[in-house]
Formats: sequence, C-alpha cells, structure tokens
Amino acid sequence: MSDASARAGAVLTIDLGAVIANWWTLLARLGRGTRAAAVVKADAYGLGAAHIAPALADAGCARFCVATIDEGIALRAVLSRAEILVFSGPHAGTESDFAGHRLIPTLNSPEQIERWKKAARKANQFFAAAIHVDTGLSRLGLSPAELEVFAADREAQAAIDVVLLMSHLVIGEQPEHPLNRAQLDRFAAARRLLPGVPGSLAASSGIFLGADWQADWVRPGASLYGANPTPARPNPMAQVINLQGKIVQVRDIDAGDTVGYGATWRAPGPTRLAVVAAGYADGLPRSLSNKGGAFLGETRVPLVGRVSMDLMVFDVGALPEGAAREGGFVTLIGAGNTVDEVGAAAGTNGYEILTSLGARYHRVWTGVAGTEA
Amino acid sequence: MSDASARAGAVLTIDLGAVIANWWTLLARLGRGTRAAAVVKADAYGLGAAHIAPALADAGCARFCVATIDEGIALRAVLSRAEILVFSGPHAGTESDFAGHRLIPTLNSPEQIERWKKAARKANQFFAAAIHVDTGLSRLGLSPAELEVFAADREAQAAIDVVLLMSHLVIGEQPEHPLNRAQLDRFAAARRLLPGVPGSLAASSGIFLGADWQADWVRPGASLYGANPTPARPNPMAQVINLQGKIVQVRDIDAGDTVGYGATWRAPGPTRLAVVAAGYADGLPRSLSNKGGAFLGETRVPLVGRVSMDLMVFDVGALPEGAAREGGFVTLIGAGNTVDEVGAAAGTNGYEILTSLGARYHRVWTGVAGTEA
Repeated sequence: MSDASARAGAVLTIDLGAVIANWWTLLARLGRGTRAAAVVKADAYGLGAAHIAPALADAGCARFCVATIDEGIALRAVLSRAEILVFSGPHAGTESDFAGHRLIPTLNSPEQIERWKKAARKANQFFAAAIHVDTGLSRLGLSPAELEVFAADREAQAAIDVVLLMSHLVIGEQPEHPLNRAQLDRFAAARRLLPGVPGSLAASSGIFLGADWQADWVRPGASLYGANPTPARPNPMAQVINLQGKIVQVRDIDAGDTVGYGATWRAPGPTRLAVVAAGYADGLPRSLSNKGGAFLGETRVPLVGRVSMDLMVFDVGALPEGAAREGGFVTLIGAGNTVDEVGAAAGTNGYEILTSLGARYHRVWTGVAGTEA
Repeated sequence: MSDASARAGAVLTIDLGAVIANWWTLLARLGRGTRAAAVVKADAYGLGAAHIAPALADAGCARFCVATIDEGIALRAVLSRAEILVFSGPHAGTESDFAGHRLIPTLNSPEQIERWKKAARKANQFFAAAIHVDTGLSRLGLSPAELEVFAADREAQAAIDVVLLMSHLVIGEQPEHPLNRAQLDRFAAARRLLPGVPGSLAASSGIFLGADWQADWVRPGASLYGANPTPARPNPMAQVINLQGKIVQVRDIDAGDTVGYGATWRAPGPTRLAVVAAGYADGLPRSLSNKGGAFLGETRVPLVGRVSMDLMVFDVGALPEGAAREGGFVTLIGAGNTVDEVGAAAGTNGYEILTSLGARYHRVWTGVAGTEA
C-alpha cells in the first residue's frame, strides 16, 4: 500500500516554527506589563490546535483562548498545565464541564453570572471567570449597565474570581476609525467599575493600535497563523501554511472549448489545462471560480471555469510544454499566494480561508524539533 | 459532566429516512434497464458517508462512487460487499491501494491506462476499471481521440475489464441548453467505440433530462441529500438536514447601534438581537453577512452584521418579548430555509453549503430503525 501523501490530492504543510516566530514578533510589539494569550479557537483557525498549542506552550505561552467548551476539553487533553479561557459562558447544565476540565468561562450575561455564582457556592469555592463587557460589537457580553449591577453585587464578588475583564474591538484593522477611540473610552469606564481586574481589548489588529489598546492582555489569533493584522501596510507576519495541489491530469483544448460546470470560461485560443485534485469540498471557495490562481514554480497560472467539489482547473498554456505534468504540484496557498490574497480573490478574508481548510488534505507539521515529516 | 448536545453550539440532524426516500424517488424516475449508483464523495456531501452509505446499502444500493482513494478505503471499512467506484485514477504508487481494498478506479488519461494495464499484467489478473471520456467539461477524462487509441489497444483490452464508460454533463440543470444534446451525441459516438460496455452520463440533474441521458447507470449525489436537481421547478426531493443553532445571548440595542465586525449594520430603531453559536468556522459562509436569515418558530429573522468565526446575530425585534431566549434555538437550515436557499443567499449553491457543514456541530442521524438519538 502507498503512504498517505502519495494518495492525497493536496498536501497542507503547517510551519510551527513560523507560528512561534509570529508569537515572538507580536510579543516584541507589546508595551511593558502587557502579556499575551494565544487564540486557538476553531481548531487553531483550521491548523490543528493539538499541534499548534503545545508548540506555543513550549515557546512560553501560558494562556490559551478557545470559543467553545468542547474546544476547551480537547485542548486540556494536550495541555495539562496552561490556563484555558473559553469565550463561551456556562450554559445550563454545562457548569461542571468547566470545573471538571479546569476551564475558565467567559461570563457574557447576567444569567451566566447567576449560574456561575450558584455553581461556586454549591462547590463552596471561589470560581475563576472572565467578564465580557460589550463596547460596541453588539454580540456577546454584558451591557455597561449590567456590568454596574455585577460590580455592586457583593455575593457575586464573593463567589467569582474575575481574572479578566474583556471586550472586542469592532474595526481594529482600520487604525484611523473613530470607533477604536470610542471603544477604548467605554472600556476604560468599564474597567473603573472593577478596579484591580486585568483588562483585555485587543486581538491581532488591536495590538498594532498601540499600548493604550493593548491593556494587560492581548489575544492574537489570525496573525499567529500568518494573516496580516495591518491590511493597509505590508504583512509583518511570517507565512505559516503552504498548500500544494496535485496535478491529476494535463489536457490540451482548442479555441472555443469551455471549461467546467456551467461552461463559464471559454478558451480564447488553443491552450493547455492542469486539473488539480482539490475543490470547494476542501475549503477552496467556489467564489474563486474564474478569479483565483495558483503558482507553478514562479509562474502564476489562472484558475479557469468553476471550482468543482473535488477539482479545479488552471490554464497553464503560457508555460513551456512539460512544465505541468501529472503527479506534479501547484501552490494553491503559499508565499506568493497568501491566505489574505486567496481570501480577497474569493471575496472574503484570510480568516475564512484558514478556518475552511479541508479534511481531505494530507497534513504535515514542520518547523520545530521532532516535527519533520 | 453534560452530554454533547448540551455543550454544542448547534445541532445538525440528518434524516437517513429522507435520504432513502430520495433514493426511491430517483429510482422511480429511471427508464427500464437503468440502474443507479449513489455518490457519497466528500463524506457524503458533508453528511457522514459512514452513516449514509450503509443506510443506502440496506435500502438496496449496491454501487457507490467516491472521489478519492482515501474515501474509497474509508468506505470499504463500512461496506464489505458493495461495489465502490473511485472517480480518481491510479496515480503512481497507488495501484495496490485499489486492488487491496477492492476499489474500482476511473481511468482518466492514457498514463493511467498504462499504469493499470501494467498492474493487471503484473498480478496476472483482469483488472476492473471505469473509463472516463470527456464530452465537454474539459476536466478529467480521455479525449475522444485517446479513447480511440484505447479501443484499438488489444493489450489493454486483455488486461482491463471496463465495467463502465462514463462522462459528466456540463449544464444538466438547464434542460433547454444545447450542450446537453451535444454531449449526448458525443457520448453516443464514444460508446460505439466500446460496444457492450455499460454507459453513464447523468448525475442528479441529468436524471431529469430523460431516458436518453440516463443510459445504463445514473450517479445521483446532491439530490439524495435534498438539493434540488431541477432548479427551475419545485424541488422533488425531501429535505434531509436540519441545523439548529443555539441562542447564547439575547440583547437589546438602541437605534443607531451597530452590529458585528466592521460595523456593517446599523439598527434603524431600538430592537432585540439573538446571538447564535455558529459562524463561518462552522461552514456558514461569511458571504451570508447581512443577507442570510433563520427561522425562530415560524418567523424568519434576518441575519444582521457580519457572520463572525464562531457566532452570528439575528434581529428578533419583530417577535414578542420572550420569543427568543438564551438556550433556545433558531433553524439555520431546514424546511423553510433549504440548503439551496442558504446557498443562494450566500452567492453559491446548495452543494457548497452541504460540503462546508462544520466539524463542531453535534450530529444526530435519525430516520431509520436503530438510529434515533
């Protein structure tokens, strides 16, 4: 039998060394006294939390953030010591999951505060939690008025050890947007209600707004994985992923021939096509149809026709005969074709490209000792 | 500890009874002598091939199609007897995977024919394969000229047992499109080169073009899972999936408040929001931002602001107070909000919605004896 990489239609290489380099790049931007927690939700943005988180822990990261209890439980299984903060609060019936796996919930509503208070009193313990205050995203979190109620609730203070007061920026990737200052002011007002509690407002882009926004803890996610936290400026982050798609067939077509479902692309002249074994079921969005591209060596080859479920087609007619061959590879995502660029071509962002990376890829983690495939 | 459904942000229910009903609906459309193979590639379009395929096998399906060798190997582990056709051909080094797991490859190129011929001669056996001829998709498959070479190759005939001659329709979902007839004519010409070999041209939509296109074998995929194979007409297929998203917070906002990243939606008046624990990392495309919707009971509630990675927000202000509550659910995909409708709202099709369904959902398979959760 063959090995898995010979069978796979595409090979996704994840450079753990680049993730760690990005971690250090971000740490170097922090003001004195600011610390960082790594966000590894959504399976570390699709790159494998069970690989990413231990590598970051080895590099000195001691606090991790996930979105859901299940992600927290899975992360605890590979990280015995680190602090794990879950952005979800305790929903009815899940209180014991947090305590049982030493996960810190984020209390987003008065109902969740009540539930956590009761759980703490029942256990006769002081239960850790983060408190989330909404400063303009209108998503999760207490309103400022609800935070005031909490701050005045002596029973809650006696039961809950507030380890963090957090909020989310709406548009941190646009440094000039007035909402950034408005949210900072609202967050400062919220912090005055809970004196002595560490604060956290900034994710990846927020770090680059400066020390005021960094507060006590920053929460980088996408930037660790190579997405540009400063879209208006060159990307300060190292490229983390490389996706090689296997050419499964090379075919010559004539002028006027159409390519793919719906016949949406017509060859202006005779050309050569490379058919690659990855499609939208692998997370390469169908919206890349007639817009995306790949690299064959140093040459960009345009994606022609619709992306299919399992396949996509590139026009390699500009290359010399033999440059594209069955069994060869094109770079679907890489240094010349970053997640941000692929996201832009697909009408979305690099975050969605990362979290959509497919289950059928052969995955290889490299870049730290012991990980070379 | 809680059970998995209490922890999950969303619950995906897959009605195996509806899949079987769809299988029978399609069989009832077939001309005499036509048989059907179920396409379960891409993990049965995201619905779990390990559940879907055995249910279909119990209902009488004896031939299954997958896209890749790895999918074939995984399917063989749950289906000991059925015939499994892999749409990929034998790439260098993978020949023994097909033979070892009793998988039938699809030979798409002269190189693959040579490889399969050699493998058969080496094993001193007659090796089964499908032959794929391209009739206009310009993707995988032999050109008509390459098929002629194969048909004249006595050594190949002596080594390879051609169990199927197949091709793909470009635009079968548009019955009036002239390409359908042109492809049928090209396919008929190809079939004359391999007399006696069963033919297959139609996938889901092609079945509805009529008996000429159905040939000997049809290959339904998306329609089994509830997508409409006849987009211009009412959907003849039963709804298969239901996706319930958990409301994790209800919040009141004021006129002028914005919702979500980038502040892309502004409340025209005071309203109430329901925050639901599913986002683009769960396969609900970011392109649904400000376009999608869900159902809360019988009422459609619009998705407001951007879809985030783990969350989305609905405006429930038109409903009475108390209708939306923490711990309640909205229907993200269901009878009133089909995969086709969600796909259209996202600027894509139902196929991509299906194959993107996320890994964090709690999945429940129902509808056949022994599957009730």
